[in-house]
Amino acid sequence: MTVTTEAAALTDRHGVVHALPAPDAEAQVRADDRAHVFHSWSAQALIDPVPVAAGEGSTFWDYQGNAYLDFSSQLVNLNLGHQQPDLVAAIQQQAGRLATIQPSIANDVRGELARLIAEVAPEGMEKVFFTNGGADANEYAVRMARTFTGRRKVLSMYRSYHGSTATAISLTGDPRRWANDSVDNGTVRFFGPYLYRSAFHSETLEQESQRALEHLEQTIQLEGPSTIAAIIIETVVGTNGVLVPPPGYLQGVRELCDRYGIVYIADEVMVGFGRLGEWFGIDAFDAKPDLITFAKGVNSGYVPLGGVVIADRIAAAFDTVSFAGGLTYSGHPLACAAGVATFEVFRRDGILERVRDLGSRIVEPTLRGWVDKHPSVGEVRGQGLFWAVELVRSKETREPLVPFNAAGADAAPMGAFAAAAKKGGVWPFVHFNRTHVAPPLVITEDELVRGLAALDAALDVADEYTV
Amino acid sequence: MTVTTEAAALTDRHGVVHALPAPDAEAQVRADDRAHVFHSWSAQALIDPVPVAAGEGSTFWDYQGNAYLDFSSQLVNLNLGHQQPDLVAAIQQQAGRLATIQPSIANDVRGELARLIAEVAPEGMEKVFFTNGGADANEYAVRMARTFTGRRKVLSMYRSYHGSTATAISLTGDPRRWANDSVDNGTVRFFGPYLYRSAFHSETLEQESQRALEHLEQTIQLEGPSTIAAIIIETVVGTNGVLVPPPGYLQGVRELCDRYGIVYIADEVMVGFGRLGEWFGIDAFDAKPDLITFAKGVNSGYVPLGGVVIADRIAAAFDTVSFAGGLTYSGHPLACAAGVATFEVFRRDGILERVRDLGSRIVEPTLRGWVDKHPSVGEVRGQGLFWAVELVRSKETREPLVPFNAAGADAAPMGAFAAAAKKGGVWPFVHFNRTHVAPPLVITEDELVRGLAALDAALDVADEYTV
Repeated sequence: MTVTTEAAALTDRHGVVHALPAPDAEAQVRADDRAHVFHSWSAQALIDPVPVAAGEGSTFWDYQGNAYLDFSSQLVNLNLGHQQPDLVAAIQQQAGRLATIQPSIANDVRGELARLIAEVAPEGMEKVFFTNGGADANEYAVRMARTFTGRRKVLSMYRSYHGSTATAISLTGDPRRWANDSVDNGTVRFFGPYLYRSAFHSETLEQESQRALEHLEQTIQLEGPSTIAAIIIETVVGTNGVLVPPPGYLQGVRELCDRYGIVYIADEVMVGFGRLGEWFGIDAFDAKPDLITFAKGVNSGYVPLGGVVIADRIAAAFDTVSFAGGLTYSGHPLACAAGVATFEVFRRDGILERVRDLGSRIVEPTLRGWVDKHPSVGEVRGQGLFWAVELVRSKETREPLVPFNAAGADAAPMGAFAAAAKKGGVWPFVHFNRTHVAPPLVITEDELVRGLAALDAALDVADEYTV
Repeated sequence: MTVTTEAAALTDRHGVVHALPAPDAEAQVRADDRAHVFHSWSAQALIDPVPVAAGEGSTFWDYQGNAYLDFSSQLVNLNLGHQQPDLVAAIQQQAGRLATIQPSIANDVRGELARLIAEVAPEGMEKVFFTNGGADANEYAVRMARTFTGRRKVLSMYRSYHGSTATAISLTGDPRRWANDSVDNGTVRFFGPYLYRSAFHSETLEQESQRALEHLEQTIQLEGPSTIAAIIIETVVGTNGVLVPPPGYLQGVRELCDRYGIVYIADEVMVGFGRLGEWFGIDAFDAKPDLITFAKGVNSGYVPLGGVVIADRIAAAFDTVSFAGGLTYSGHPLACAAGVATFEVFRRDGILERVRDLGSRIVEPTLRGWVDKHPSVGEVRGQGLFWAVELVRSKETREPLVPFNAAGADAAPMGAFAAAAKKGGVWPFVHFNRTHVAPPLVITEDELVRGLAALDAALDVADEYTV
């Protein structure tokens, strides 16, 4: 635990001054971390993790008292911000009532959260299977689809991320898969719509939607429809670019799935629970998946939780046949309590409405302005509080500001941009040649405007790398 | 949340009377569960999950006020029992400080728990990679082994369980794998030591150990040593029978791994953190694995948490090469805070010592007595507070009381035994033709004696099915 003697001070958005832990506490945190913590997706000796001392709302502080506006919502999970009082209270209360109970028992808060989720899910999706996070949500969705169809293959997009356990990483369409290729060999990648860098030489969104669907149908036909259990699609592609599906695309996917008896899995690990200003991202696109996977936003990641919302016809297939999957912490009461509180806060505070408002009134016009203002800004795209700014060396050639999957010196321009953003008080989300705008959904208008101004200034640095 | 108006009462072990939720609350729990919760490993329409109203120490209560002594520690995770005050307080305090932070940040409680684990791990295992549970701990251990060796295959035992995500279930050597066979096709099963039903026609433990090692070496040679990344072994096989390795077996595995350049993964998801009266089960057998996977007991499952303890030579392989794996909730602060408190409680309350004491002084002699007393008890085996009672139709033929993987009517004798145990106030762990004795490590001597007496009485029911 941290010591709080000689402490720096921080002021939260309510004007309350908090003590920060002392610098010697930082040294201990750093020493323990470097000696004993093995980090995700990292060369362990080449990283220097920043010790964070505190968080409140959209802001977190390092041990030196530097404040960062979190434009990444941690890993796009912190939808209600740090230390949201109702979520904290719900966890504290549930910990005092019944911290855990095994999944074969019936539990009040587990059932309540399942009901709340079913109530906001599309009609005909009444059951929820709870997992520990997004990766295993996708694992179990695929398993349901394979058992339901009796088929084995699953189609997923290039430029996608579905998690890191064996099936989830095998589905993934970004370089994180390469070292794990393909532990689950029943996976096939196809190209999704992405007009700015169209795989189909499209010139309009309509063309891109239609051609991407033609490509998907060709892939289905050439792989063999009778071999394909499922198609899994991030409703809006997340880490790989905030790729918003063009009009008609997801409806077209639904039609192809119906035509070929394929299960449509919507991966809503990032976009579910408000990121797009809807309970589920599919609501923004009138899409009708068979399985919806979720995690992150369901309880802002305060307690690990994920799950699968299941179409009734698929759930019914397991009424008298056992589902061959499970986990010790399925429907963990502590995690579910934070989920129930999330629904209460969303409704009381009009979170969905404010996401739509802030997105359309503040973020969209500001970002669109950057396309004209900054030579490095090739395209901006997004919805709600989920936007990408795609940086280029040249607007004309659209050459990315850094090469695909760049590391080290090759990635220097994006590193310079990120450093400038941090200096301006914003913790940016940076991936390849993009920065994403994905702050907590509770961000105040002032914070949002201030953070966008800092990114705007940091883009001046990126501009220096254009040709 | 539950209503507590017209409530039954329950008395905890301190003599404190608690109100139980009203019967109408039970109806709501049951309705929500049946309508909306999709359960692990189940035919959904054929189950009737019991709503549990409260838990305290080794006991939980249904909504009718019936108390059950939990001889299964939920899913062998509740090592410190229900509502252990220090764990509850640690969660409540951490929730109020900083509920979550992403894994690329350095965090005090994450680093502290990693250090505490490294301190009790074998020398030369300084780093810990945190996961959400046991399944993904095994997934990432296998990934480390594959990357480290550049080989692909992993050997695991028949009669084993390693989790349910794709690689973990593919490793698993029990019927839960069958429907998922073999999504990760780089897995091979071998036979482990099990003298009571020896695959090697052994008559002594020494023979069984030696012959099982010969079999393992033959398997390695026939599969091709240069193709094998890892051997994964539950230090004591858990759900599949509390199979305690005979003297010399795990040392022999170490030697084979050294001889053939194979990584030895000890799966300690069940036996880690005190179940055998040791921090790690390997301490009881003087075994030297390269990777140790854990979950459950690390924080009694109060918050989902698992991980991999990593030998320095393997961790070093990822100093300048990136580890290709990760997860949003790796080293989750709330989960780690409950882990740090677990260490404090273990040390303050002498948990390891009391497990060894209760195991050798109460459980072992009582169970050994059952072999003579009950015609249905073929063998008892175990260590610490982890024991199996293997039930047979005939001691002479050793025919199991129910067939392997029996369901429905075929499993009736075990169902009758379980019902009798529950009637006697014990919630038993039942798997195939066995019942396991795996109560919380904080169980009082009185509770233990009382629970064992109830199992003893229930065995009279099992005796009726012998020939």
